[in-house]
Amino acid sequence: MAASYLADNQQRFLDELLDWLRIPSVSADPKFQGDVRRAADFLKARLEEAGVNNVALCETAGNPIVYGDYLTDPALPTVLVYGHYDVQPADPYELWQSPPFEPVIKDGKIYARGACDDKGQAYMHVKAFEMMMRDGQGGVPCNIKFMIEGEEEIGSNNLALFVQANKEKLQADVILLSDTGIIANDVPSIEVGLRGLSYHEVEVTGPNRDLHSGLYGGAVQNPINALCAMIASLHDENGHITIPAFYANVEELTPAARAELAKAPFNEAEFEASIGLPVAYGEAGYSTPERTSIRPTLDVNGIWGGYTGEGAKTVIASKAFAKISMRLVPNQTSDEITALFQEHFTRIAPAGVTVQVRPHHGGEPVVTPTDSAAYRAAAAAMETTFGKAPVPTRGGGSIPIVAMFKSELGIDSVLLGFGLDSDAIHSPNEHFGVFNFLKGIETIPHFYRNYAAAETR
Amino acid sequence: MAASYLADNQQRFLDELLDWLRIPSVSADPKFQGDVRRAADFLKARLEEAGVNNVALCETAGNPIVYGDYLTDPALPTVLVYGHYDVQPADPYELWQSPPFEPVIKDGKIYARGACDDKGQAYMHVKAFEMMMRDGQGGVPCNIKFMIEGEEEIGSNNLALFVQANKEKLQADVILLSDTGIIANDVPSIEVGLRGLSYHEVEVTGPNRDLHSGLYGGAVQNPINALCAMIASLHDENGHITIPAFYANVEELTPAARAELAKAPFNEAEFEASIGLPVAYGEAGYSTPERTSIRPTLDVNGIWGGYTGEGAKTVIASKAFAKISMRLVPNQTSDEITALFQEHFTRIAPAGVTVQVRPHHGGEPVVTPTDSAAYRAAAAAMETTFGKAPVPTRGGGSIPIVAMFKSELGIDSVLLGFGLDSDAIHSPNEHFGVFNFLKGIETIPHFYRNYAAAETR
Repeated sequence: MAASYLADNQQRFLDELLDWLRIPSVSADPKFQGDVRRAADFLKARLEEAGVNNVALCETAGNPIVYGDYLTDPALPTVLVYGHYDVQPADPYELWQSPPFEPVIKDGKIYARGACDDKGQAYMHVKAFEMMMRDGQGGVPCNIKFMIEGEEEIGSNNLALFVQANKEKLQADVILLSDTGIIANDVPSIEVGLRGLSYHEVEVTGPNRDLHSGLYGGAVQNPINALCAMIASLHDENGHITIPAFYANVEELTPAARAELAKAPFNEAEFEASIGLPVAYGEAGYSTPERTSIRPTLDVNGIWGGYTGEGAKTVIASKAFAKISMRLVPNQTSDEITALFQEHFTRIAPAGVTVQVRPHHGGEPVVTPTDSAAYRAAAAAMETTFGKAPVPTRGGGSIPIVAMFKSELGIDSVLLGFGLDSDAIHSPNEHFGVFNFLKGIETIPHFYRNYAAAETR
Repeated sequence: MAASYLADNQQRFLDELLDWLRIPSVSADPKFQGDVRRAADFLKARLEEAGVNNVALCETAGNPIVYGDYLTDPALPTVLVYGHYDVQPADPYELWQSPPFEPVIKDGKIYARGACDDKGQAYMHVKAFEMMMRDGQGGVPCNIKFMIEGEEEIGSNNLALFVQANKEKLQADVILLSDTGIIANDVPSIEVGLRGLSYHEVEVTGPNRDLHSGLYGGAVQNPINALCAMIASLHDENGHITIPAFYANVEELTPAARAELAKAPFNEAEFEASIGLPVAYGEAGYSTPERTSIRPTLDVNGIWGGYTGEGAKTVIASKAFAKISMRLVPNQTSDEITALFQEHFTRIAPAGVTVQVRPHHGGEPVVTPTDSAAYRAAAAAMETTFGKAPVPTRGGGSIPIVAMFKSELGIDSVLLGFGLDSDAIHSPNEHFGVFNFLKGIETIPHFYRNYAAAETR
């Protein structure tokens, strides 16, 4: 019956998702502010149609949080479902094979900004709820609260305030979210670790105006050259980060723990082929999966300065800029690393330039429990729908709100994600498999049933 | 009479120049192509009004060259006047206090893109010619050929072809151009050396698409980080350029020659204050004036890659780019240094990225004679109008066509420029002093008279 409800309705589910993806809900860019709100209104209407109660746009200083609930019986466990309806900026637009906000389904994949991260994954929860309400399989077996925000891609600052102000309303036994992935469509997995984030914009200022490189070249510190030298100095020849005390609190895994993680299937040649590179690269002494999970990293996410137009302009720029972020691992904190970076990056400025470091949002690294009833319910649900038990993995991304939920609400999360690393989230041509979207809708009700069976008082 | 003609007409001269500056003749950007041609048409009309004969737009594969002449007597010496009517791009527009193509006169200075480089200085020659024709001081005492091009800011490639194809038409005894400056309004000077140029755009490619820095960070070579490391390695801790053999052919001046150059007035504190920097910077072992004249340099003129919009995007870019140029000194050649740079920059690419180096135009360094009749005529003209003999200086900029004229036509140049280093050419708020514009118009006829007196057969 569930399979038949899903089969009977899957085209409508996809059509609805595509309608949502047409709304360019880019939170980082103020010019999309109206679209962000339209995306929230769209979600509110779909939750109401599915049968969720008390659906409301909860206003914040920024984008609204869409909240709704379905509270049937105090004896049943309560699950707080988190997701986000905002998306990353879509540029560079010219690299998209189809426009980012004109979704198309091609070769079994939905192509659009937000197809996977996170509209597609959040929408699985809406449709799984609808299915439980209507498919005659026993209804909704848990109390459910939905909290879908619109500022995940810009740091969730207003969500944190909302959570602090609504601790009672948000009380739950577990938080369920789908903003992560599986190893492959035939290798289900559940992420149990996430990296934290410390993100900065740096501004290097040299002369008080752009200068002619002929008249002044050789006699002034060029801010772009200076910025490059500063960035280059942040790694040593072994790929270690040189910021003093950067590794001081890094959790060092035991050989046994590293061996356990190494059991997850990984093919180095396939990894290299998938990104078109002949060699993997990274910190000496660690494998590729370790480099993207249990080790902290530092990457420049953007750089700009001087003349970047067509042709040649012989200028020494007054200023150069970069966006630099670090991924953090357990026992590092965002505040600690942000302070270390600011202090270090300011200190290494060479004579002739000054430096400003402006931190953006940060996020804490997190490890979620694998010995909880909720984790077991999720693993069993996946085993049912994939025919194979999921592998626990440590992910490289950051979902700062997972640590925030733990510290503010005292609630652990289960990261029941269905994306793939190859989905190109945050990149041109982001996509989400139709298989993955439907598999998510199929799996989520099993989680609720398993969890209710284990936890009902 | 000359002074009175200049005084009587100076407002009109300025108005005409301002009209010309309103035409955004940016040669580097194809979208201004129509404006570039309008600027050529404007110049043609003004030359004809002044009494120049045979004025024509000589078509090239790019922008036309405006040619005209006034050939009065084979016994008189012939002067080929060179200038350019194209201008540098004006961005970043937001740093201009008044729009770059809406010229204003403020505090005795004409503010506009091209005010000094080179429309303002080229226009001095048009008005000096008009004045000689009309002021009753004996007429035009030399044969004069005007050749004003529209591609100086993008490398003068078509001018070189034009010169090769028109060697007979362009024969002259000396080339006169005003695309340089004086030390100060009370310290006249004539540039006798110019640096050459080797200019490149580099492209560093890593993964085959932009990647999520959480999922991939730590396991791929980040092209921006790699580019920064490559750029940082191009200088050592003493400010020397590390490209092998880069200095092999550099002309090393004798202590006596350095002492002679050191006689030009220079105030380090004023230099630092003018650019808002607490310390001068540069190659160890050389003074600031030496660093900008007799020493070769390497500067990044622009850099870009990854996310440069508002807010935070956690991306590892597929590609990073920079524009890198070197200023060359006598005995270096543009071809030699271009080859050395390409070879070196490609070789230092770290594992995990590939590099493309695309050379733009280059230019040869040049030293012009100070013992010629033309140089003496120019120096005497300045002494008459400034009341003080000019100092010979070595400039840091590049006017590649000066070397090209010498090699193709066998003709030396005199660099009779009236700009100031502080004119912000190639920068926002470019300007040209009204004093300098009028002083140029006043001085140029003296040059012709002095030169004719010395060289008439």
